[in-house]
This record gives sequence, structure tokens and C-alpha cells, in this order.
Amino acid sequence: MAKDKLIGVDLGGTTIKFAILTAEGEIQQKWSIKTNILDEGSHIVPDIIDSINHHLDLYQLDKDRIIGIGMGTPGTVDTENGTVRAAFNLNWKETQNVREQIEAGTGLPLTMDNDANAAALGEQWRGAGNNQPDVAFITLGTGVGGGLINDGKLIHGVAGAGGEVGHMIVEPGGYLCTCGNYGCLEQYASATGVVHLAQDFAEAYAGNSQLKAMVDNGEEVTSKIVFDLAKDGDYLANEVVDKVAYYLGLASANISNILNPSSVVIGGGVSAAGKFLLDRVAKNFSQFAFKATRDVTEVKLAELGNDAGAYGAASLARNSDRTIA
Amino acid sequence: MAKDKLIGVDLGGTTIKFAILTAEGEIQQKWSIKTNILDEGSHIVPDIIDSINHHLDLYQLDKDRIIGIGMGTPGTVDTENGTVRAAFNLNWKETQNVREQIEAGTGLPLTMDNDANAAALGEQWRGAGNNQPDVAFITLGTGVGGGLINDGKLIHGVAGAGGEVGHMIVEPGGYLCTCGNYGCLEQYASATGVVHLAQDFAEAYAGNSQLKAMVDNGEEVTSKIVFDLAKDGDYLANEVVDKVAYYLGLASANISNILNPSSVVIGGGVSAAGKFLLDRVAKNFSQFAFKATRDVTEVKLAELGNDAGAYGAASLARNSDRTIA
Repeated sequence: MAKDKLIGVDLGGTTIKFAILTAEGEIQQKWSIKTNILDEGSHIVPDIIDSINHHLDLYQLDKDRIIGIGMGTPGTVDTENGTVRAAFNLNWKETQNVREQIEAGTGLPLTMDNDANAAALGEQWRGAGNNQPDVAFITLGTGVGGGLINDGKLIHGVAGAGGEVGHMIVEPGGYLCTCGNYGCLEQYASATGVVHLAQDFAEAYAGNSQLKAMVDNGEEVTSKIVFDLAKDGDYLANEVVDKVAYYLGLASANISNILNPSSVVIGGGVSAAGKFLLDRVAKNFSQFAFKATRDVTEVKLAELGNDAGAYGAASLARNSDRTIA
Repeated sequence: MAKDKLIGVDLGGTTIKFAILTAEGEIQQKWSIKTNILDEGSHIVPDIIDSINHHLDLYQLDKDRIIGIGMGTPGTVDTENGTVRAAFNLNWKETQNVREQIEAGTGLPLTMDNDANAAALGEQWRGAGNNQPDVAFITLGTGVGGGLINDGKLIHGVAGAGGEVGHMIVEPGGYLCTCGNYGCLEQYASATGVVHLAQDFAEAYAGNSQLKAMVDNGEEVTSKIVFDLAKDGDYLANEVVDKVAYYLGLASANISNILNPSSVVIGGGVSAAGKFLLDRVAKNFSQFAFKATRDVTEVKLAELGNDAGAYGAASLARNSDRTIA
């Protein structure tokens, strides 16, 4: 029987998303289950196995037709040995033999990578990256993550820490990062970074601004509120957005100055601000990018939203030569 | 006859260096000729062909034993089509069909890349990179160039501008670069950048310093003089070296934060300052590098000197699957 289907699994701290795709990357089925992190996360892998087996039965899809399973997961992934460690939001305290268990439980080969890398591959293959071989991906959420694809392959580096764009230093001596360093991109372009900037800007500003009034009144300010106020013309909120765009433009340019990708794709919750943010990032990018990359590299918004992880996971399976004996 | 030899060619603006190596990268013969840039550089390629053919005769080395020729060249290399353009120091005004000519003239397959990429491969294979698959290379000369090797392969990007580490922005709004941008690494860590810093620091400094005296007297200051004065304890010269090391440490860290290499190798003329410079770069690197890369990435001095280009050129031939019909 010809192998013509891929399974993509996007494992997250609250939800596990599944998709069955054609080899060309069309999603044919998708579903999700809640992530049960009780009992040190010991139910997670069995739940994934059961859900895959159950749905293949349900869709009467023969396992012989499955090219393989790909999975994006939080934590540090040992792609060689198929293990995951330091996935704190899954309540996994010890290193988990994820691949061994899922392959035994499904009889299908599994290829894994971390969630940001999987999302990067998804956008590269089926999203804003237009299936070009050289794509950089930055995701702006509660933190800042990313994935870098060179010549069709993820950059892992020697310890799997390739693509940690959130920890590029964009402001030496700047905000203290959770990583211990000062001035990481994550501290300026994540949802919490935007709020941090808003608070600091509000303190230093004496003029009229609804954002300043909210901060001064101790009201809860989110990155969405900052962007909404900026769109409404609030002066201070626009100053904050300009600063966020400056750091994102600088980081995107420096990534491009050394990797020369066809696109830098920006996704994640903060990127919901859309073209309003993107245009300002692109302006800063143009200022900081070397001509040879400025002429060919496009800064773009991600296109796949929550499906990027499942697409990318499927792409991992597609590009893998892993088989089950 | 078993193919067991490589030919490496390092084409420069004043000299063309040649080497014959074993497949394992031991240099067995090396020689060089002057680069004749007269008549729009039209003698260069014929000279290369004649020199290779002549030396293979001289060493009675059968062409059947040659795996291939690799060559590093100035200019913009189209690795796909085997052409070179914008090699101004060779006096080449038009795009040159280098590969076609050399393959026709020698009967051997040719693989090319730009000179900085070739030197990077040389250091990665046979120098400070210890033949590890993930190595970043920065070369400090009149400009700042480099090459990035990920998983054993050079990062080229979509337009061949991968590895342009000299144009990473390390000081937004800083010194104007020849590329048109402000604050590129090249303006702070090249030989001319070091002198530029020395001049600016001397103007702003009122204390005792031989470096300041030299600048004030209009004496010629070179980067070597700055480093020599710093080694002798001159206060201002040490401030300059600290600043150069800061920018190199920041750039090395940001490269490593996204590529996670096993080493960042620093070569070129300015790196002749040796451990004196390296130790300060490493200190800044530690401050700016994300833990996951700080723990595994070593900042090192290049080891191959002028031979890096020939070794790397041979490495291009070694890794190529190009054959002659």
C-alpha cells in the first residue's frame, strides 16, 4: 500500500492538536484533546497514542498508508535519541523517552523537534515562507521563540539551541531577562516585554495619554491594549509600538545579515497587531539590513495561526528517513 | 586509478595560492603565482589553468587521481552556475565563466565559493574548528568577513549573502559603513575600524597617552600600533581594545545565540593581536551569550593563517559531487 499520509502532533501545555495531512501538506482531518498534566505528566504520551490509534480507526485509515508521525513539543528535544527534558509546562520532571513509547504504541515512526522549530517549519512549508528553502521565523508570545531554516533544514547547532532568536541581545545593558542576561529581544518584543516598555514609558512621560492614565491608575495593561490604543492614536502607545518595532527590525535585520533568508516570518500572539506592527518592523529592517539581504528578504506576518505547529510537525515526518523495523 | 588528491586554489588580488592535498587534508605540495590583473584580469584564469597543469606534470601526478579542484575567490560567486561577478580587486568588470574555463582547461571538476567562505571551511576542517559540523568564522582584515558552517555546510542563503557577519549592526546609529548603513561590525573591528575608534577616543581624552600623542601629532596610527601600545599599558589604547572586544564579543554572542556553534573562530590580520584580544572578546561573549550556547561555544583564534583559504578550497572539492562528463 502506498504511503501517502502524514500525522502532525502539536503538543502544548493546555491542548494537544492533531492533524492528518496528505504528503503535499493538505490537512484532511484535525482534532484536539486537553493536555492532562496530572501525575507528573505521565498521561500525556499514552493519551497521544490512544488518540492517534482511535482516530485512525475512526477514519478507517490503514497504518500502512502513514509515512510517519511528526511532533512539536515544549522543552529541550534530543532529536537523535527521541527524548524530551525540561518541559516544565507539561509537568515532566525527568527526561521522557517519548519516541520509544509513541513508536511502540502506534507502530509508526516518530520524528520530533521543539514547538518553535515545528511552527517555523510549518510556516516555511505551507505558510508565509512559500516553501522556500531559507526562512527565519520569530514567534512573539509570552516569550519570544523562533526557528531558522537554511537550505530546507532547521538549524539546530551543537546543543540544539539554534534558533533562540529571543535571546539575541538587542539592547546591551537593557532589561534583565529570565535567562540571566540583559537586553534580550524577548524582554522587548514579547507580550510581557511590551507591557514593561509601556510602564517605563508612562513613568517618564508627562503629556496626555490614555495609556499613561491606565498605568498611573494601576489598571491592567496588556500588549493588546497597548496596540489598540496606538491604533487609536494614543501618543505614548505609539512610542511603545515604535520601540518594539525598532527591536524587532534590528533583530530581523541581524538574522538576515548573516543568514540571507527569503523571508523573516513573524507570528505568535503579539503579531495579531498585524500590518500596523509589521509596517514599522519592515521600516526598521530596511534601515539595518545589508543591501544584499534587504533586496531579497521580505518581512512578513505568519499565515497559519494555530495550525503552524501541526503543519510543521507533519513536515518533520515528511523530511525524515526514520522507519520502524 | 583511485582518486585520492585534492587541489585547493586561493585566488587573491595580489597572489594566487595553490595546494595539493590528500583526501584527508594533508598539504603535500604548495606553490603560488602573482595575480596578473592587467587587461581586465583576462590572464588570471588562463594562468590558473597553466599553473595547475604544469605542476601536475612536474609532480608526475596523474589527473585520474584528482578528486577535484576547489577555489576561493573574491567577488560574488554563483555557486550554481560557476560564475564570478563584482570581483573588483581582480579587475573583472564583467561576469566571468570561471568554472567552464577551468574545467575545460584542466579536465577536472571545479567547485567554487567566495574567499571568506573558503577560509571558514578551512578553519572548520583543519584548523581551530576541529572538524566539528557547526562553526562560525570571523575574519578581521581591512574589512570584516566571515563564513558560517551549519551541520557541515556553508550557509549561503537565498542570494549567497549568508555569513556577512561584518554587516551585522552592533551600534545602531554608529559609524557610517561603506555599505551605506550605520554601526556595522566592520566599522569597529576591522583594521580601519580600530584606527577610527583610536582617533575618536583620542579626541575625547584629556589624560596621558602615547596613542593620544601620536594621533594629536598627526602620526600614522595602525591597528597594530594600537594593540602594541595597549600591550605596553597605554591607557587609551586599552580603552580602544576594550571597545573592539566589546563589539566582537557582542557579535560573536548574537551569532551563537541563533546558530549555537561549537566554536566562533576569529582570524585575519587584526587577530594577530592574539590572546591579548581573544581573552577580552571571550569575556564579552560570556556576558552576551545565552546559557545554552555559552556552555558549549568556544571563542578561538584561527590556526591556519594564510593557508586557510587553500585548505578550505580543497574542502569545497572534497564535499562536492561535481564530476566531468
